[in-house]
Amino acid sequence: MTRYWWVNHKQTFKQEINGGYLWSPKREANGVRSQFYENMRLAAPNNLVLSFAHSRIAYVGRVTDFALSAPKPLEFASAGANWDEEGWLLPIHWHPLGVPVRPKEIISRLAQFLPEKYSPISSQTGNGNQKAYLAEISSQAFQIVMEFSGNEGSGPAHLDGSISRSADFKDVLETRVEELINGDLNLSSSEKVQLIKARRGQGIFRDNVSRVENACRVTGITNRRLLIASHIKPWRSCADSMQRLDGYNGLMLTPNVDLLFDRGFISFTNDGQILKSHHIDASEFDRLGVFDFDKPKAFLPKQHQYLQHHRESVFLG
Amino acid sequence: MTRYWWVNHKQTFKQEINGGYLWSPKREANGVRSQFYENMRLAAPNNLVLSFAHSRIAYVGRVTDFALSAPKPLEFASAGANWDEEGWLLPIHWHPLGVPVRPKEIISRLAQFLPEKYSPISSQTGNGNQKAYLAEISSQAFQIVMEFSGNEGSGPAHLDGSISRSADFKDVLETRVEELINGDLNLSSSEKVQLIKARRGQGIFRDNVSRVENACRVTGITNRRLLIASHIKPWRSCADSMQRLDGYNGLMLTPNVDLLFDRGFISFTNDGQILKSHHIDASEFDRLGVFDFDKPKAFLPKQHQYLQHHRESVFLG
Repeated sequence: MTRYWWVNHKQTFKQEINGGYLWSPKREANGVRSQFYENMRLAAPNNLVLSFAHSRIAYVGRVTDFALSAPKPLEFASAGANWDEEGWLLPIHWHPLGVPVRPKEIISRLAQFLPEKYSPISSQTGNGNQKAYLAEISSQAFQIVMEFSGNEGSGPAHLDGSISRSADFKDVLETRVEELINGDLNLSSSEKVQLIKARRGQGIFRDNVSRVENACRVTGITNRRLLIASHIKPWRSCADSMQRLDGYNGLMLTPNVDLLFDRGFISFTNDGQILKSHHIDASEFDRLGVFDFDKPKAFLPKQHQYLQHHRESVFLG
Repeated sequence: MTRYWWVNHKQTFKQEINGGYLWSPKREANGVRSQFYENMRLAAPNNLVLSFAHSRIAYVGRVTDFALSAPKPLEFASAGANWDEEGWLLPIHWHPLGVPVRPKEIISRLAQFLPEKYSPISSQTGNGNQKAYLAEISSQAFQIVMEFSGNEGSGPAHLDGSISRSADFKDVLETRVEELINGDLNLSSSEKVQLIKARRGQGIFRDNVSRVENACRVTGITNRRLLIASHIKPWRSCADSMQRLDGYNGLMLTPNVDLLFDRGFISFTNDGQILKSHHIDASEFDRLGVFDFDKPKAFLPKQHQYLQHHRESVFLG
């Protein structure tokens, strides 16, 4: 079922439209969770999004992939990217509207279809809700805006016209980290080699992980040739070299489980229970060989901080 | 069960010992199959290998991974690598023997334990069999040589001392192809981007494949977010840009199946039947969700040439 969303862009409006995505922090500045940010991981491919900025809706977007944990886009190109402050990046294919729509001018038609809670604009004034970022709206509200917009413009709004997915953004981010590693004067060339091998789950990282974990947590397979050494806290998000090579920051997973874990479709509790995202059907989990365990194996204390990161910052819920 | 092998190195002896592998062509110069080359894909991790060159055995090796299709190592570093003439590369961890052994001098003890067919040396003279490359020997023959060798030397023979696996060699080869692509004056920068994205199953290649194949051949999954666009003829082995981006040279596979197909643990007949390598246990195939099909779906004629390459040059049998 298609869900409809409305985004009140913040200062990254231009980057978001040109880059083909939305970006939000994970929590408010005071550390509290916000539904408007949690919505980033509820959005799914083919959902539709109205883009609201400078008092008007000038673009409509189609979600092209699930959200990915990523640093603030303004920092993509700067040397001092603050990897500790990652947010959610949601890939979107934007199209300009034929006629931009000013919600304030049509608020009398729109008001009754806006949500009572978490509305993106005031149903009285039509002014943007300062706290809102990504808000869910009804299909009726979406349709009314589209009625006033004329036809969609022809081409995509992105600078390069291509549709980007999470894997593309992940590549860009990881390549940026590789450049930082290669340019780090505090690292020897053999350390650099190992850090970069770790990106693909190879080298010393793999050896370290297999000393901590000897079998896939889900399938029980122990044949190392069928296992991938997968970071719990993603390689690109690690704070330092220690985390990138830490055997406690990895699991040995069969490839299906590695993909699900890497993309946040599954996670684990500290006592070893599997958590499954509602984004994947039960029948798909079955076909992928992912079943609940009879006897979950608890994780070691040194793995807990990484698992907590995965549940909060990778798992899509 | 450990199998024992004996290699008569050819002109790539030094590269093989220093590089940590064995390399052979796939067929003889006249196109005929040779058991000595077929043995490259029968060798499995932890098998042991005696290294025979210049009339003596000076190294013993442990197989560290299954064979990988790769160009002749002498050409690794040259610009004009002939990718059409790929052979088998078998990763080996070599150790020097304390005392090199001359088989000719111990042939009276060795002779009765040598195989009647496909022997690496003559049981009469102890001279090397010119046609032999990798020959299987009995555990007794192996033990006799080891008795005469003194203890194994301490360190590995490789220049860098590290254990290499197929994934490492694959990375080296693929990086070399990337360099060739980046240096190709006949390609535009956007073509280069697409060719390099295709290495990871992304970009135009993925779009092309999903127009030909809409579901995983093994699991039937159609959710594109759970599928990997996998080359049939490996990306590194493709003759040109057309093959690297050709939708008929790919399958959409769930990750377990992608790994098995990429590493040659499964292949397909042209009429869509699955072929399973004897290197993977039946119970492992079960856990990975790989079962025979009730109704195999035949491949299209344009896919056949790529599948033939996969069966002959990737599948381990």
